[in-house]
Amino acid sequence: MDVAARIEKALETALDAAGGEGAPPRLAAAMRYAVFPGGARIRPRLALSVARACGDGDPAAADAAAAAIELLHCASLVHDDLPCFDDADFRRSKPTVHVAYGEPLAVLCGDALIVLAFETVARGATANPARLAPLVLTVAGAVGMPGGIAAGQAWECEPMVDLAEYHRAKTGVLFAAAAMAGAAAAGHEPAPWRIFGARLGEAFQVADDIRDAACTAAEIGKPVGQDATLGRRSAVLDLGMAGALDRLDRLIEEALAAVPACPGAAELKAIVRKQARGFLPKELAREAA
Amino acid sequence: MDVAARIEKALETALDAAGGEGAPPRLAAAMRYAVFPGGARIRPRLALSVARACGDGDPAAADAAAAAIELLHCASLVHDDLPCFDDADFRRSKPTVHVAYGEPLAVLCGDALIVLAFETVARGATANPARLAPLVLTVAGAVGMPGGIAAGQAWECEPMVDLAEYHRAKTGVLFAAAAMAGAAAAGHEPAPWRIFGARLGEAFQVADDIRDAACTAAEIGKPVGQDATLGRRSAVLDLGMAGALDRLDRLIEEALAAVPACPGAAELKAIVRKQARGFLPKELAREAA
Repeated sequence: MDVAARIEKALETALDAAGGEGAPPRLAAAMRYAVFPGGARIRPRLALSVARACGDGDPAAADAAAAAIELLHCASLVHDDLPCFDDADFRRSKPTVHVAYGEPLAVLCGDALIVLAFETVARGATANPARLAPLVLTVAGAVGMPGGIAAGQAWECEPMVDLAEYHRAKTGVLFAAAAMAGAAAAGHEPAPWRIFGARLGEAFQVADDIRDAACTAAEIGKPVGQDATLGRRSAVLDLGMAGALDRLDRLIEEALAAVPACPGAAELKAIVRKQARGFLPKELAREAA
Repeated sequence: MDVAARIEKALETALDAAGGEGAPPRLAAAMRYAVFPGGARIRPRLALSVARACGDGDPAAADAAAAAIELLHCASLVHDDLPCFDDADFRRSKPTVHVAYGEPLAVLCGDALIVLAFETVARGATANPARLAPLVLTVAGAVGMPGGIAAGQAWECEPMVDLAEYHRAKTGVLFAAAAMAGAAAAGHEPAPWRIFGARLGEAFQVADDIRDAACTAAEIGKPVGQDATLGRRSAVLDLGMAGALDRLDRLIEEALAAVPACPGAAELKAIVRKQARGFLPKELAREAA
């Protein structure tokens, strides 16, 4: 089964369990709505790539880790979109969960997706029970306190902090956890994979800035300064387009240099180089160094 | 160390980790505010009592399980109190978390407490890694979908259901999980402990109804029919005071009859009989049969 199919199947299995006998139908529907259809599933892809590089000796655990990371990503989007945070009406080209299902179900949807993530890793770790604790701790560290997504979001409620940095941290921490969880699922020490994942997360963010700026220039008159107006930092605004592209290359190189010794290191590096180009619109993609 | 001290220490340890280096101070404070000072801590007491009845061979795991159950209870209170649900201003004689810290931090506080619960069991299960999966699954089942607290709350968003039943289910499920988690932490099969915990949860709810009715009658003119006005079922309204006291006795007896074979069964039953009387105001307490 290819990577995309493994991820969707693992997510389907998790959502099927959540929507099982006795489930309140609207919450079950809201959870599916939040998870399907997905975006690029880049975080679970990263988890599976690292598990594969580490030998993929326990595919069930790797699938569960990948699904858990994506479930937590989806949960964070549902809660971030709530009226008390971003008050966003659209996400992935459809109404956000609270718009479609109401605010109470959106709160519960995020809660239940968080719980489902941990349940999923517990179900997936049956063949190698000793791997479960590192998996749970990796995943929890990425979403909880003191340094996970909830912590990153909470910095927005603090006076006088550099919010832009925390926005960035929120992206990086789940990428780092994806890489670490993939390693943990394969029985490898997760910590050495943190920098690899974090650098890829930063690269993804820079590529996102580049895409936004490129679309802004090419498309329907959205003002170029919008990121600045909204108080968002953008690598393109900070460094210019050429500088941002250089920064992207450098982050990818730093990620590659941080790949720990493992059986599939060479293959993993080749995948990263290939996918990093896919981060960008075709006309801007250049060969990574 | 006595049971109360074990529980507070386990909760302190968990909250210290959550508020560790780099934590956003206001979210860390909100989490402490939601957890301390506690109520009766009856759910974690139940978890520790069952772990003790099962031999308490791994006190660290039992403490972690007890703390996790209480963290999830606190998380559910924080989210239930939100404006989009009960819109409650006071809880445990102080302003609710969203009143004290704002709605964004209240959402994040609930999220982070859920995550911390799972992190806590993972940290507590190091001596016996094989016990972690049953612990995580027990805890997740009590709060997630299809049958946990989030599911119970979601039934309020469904048309045409008997909400009173789901309110009751929400109480029962966490008591059941407390008993099961205590057993799992001690290396016993959790499932046989479900009915014991669930019956105690029902008993606690009936005792609560009795306390409310007794206070209503004795005190400052709150109308006796308020539960009915608010669409809440009350054992006292349904059965009368004598009937409710009978029902409480019967639930306690059913709980006692459901205690699985274990080394400390006799001691556990004695504790339950003693504590069940403590559920009630002194003037209404009578010897359990």
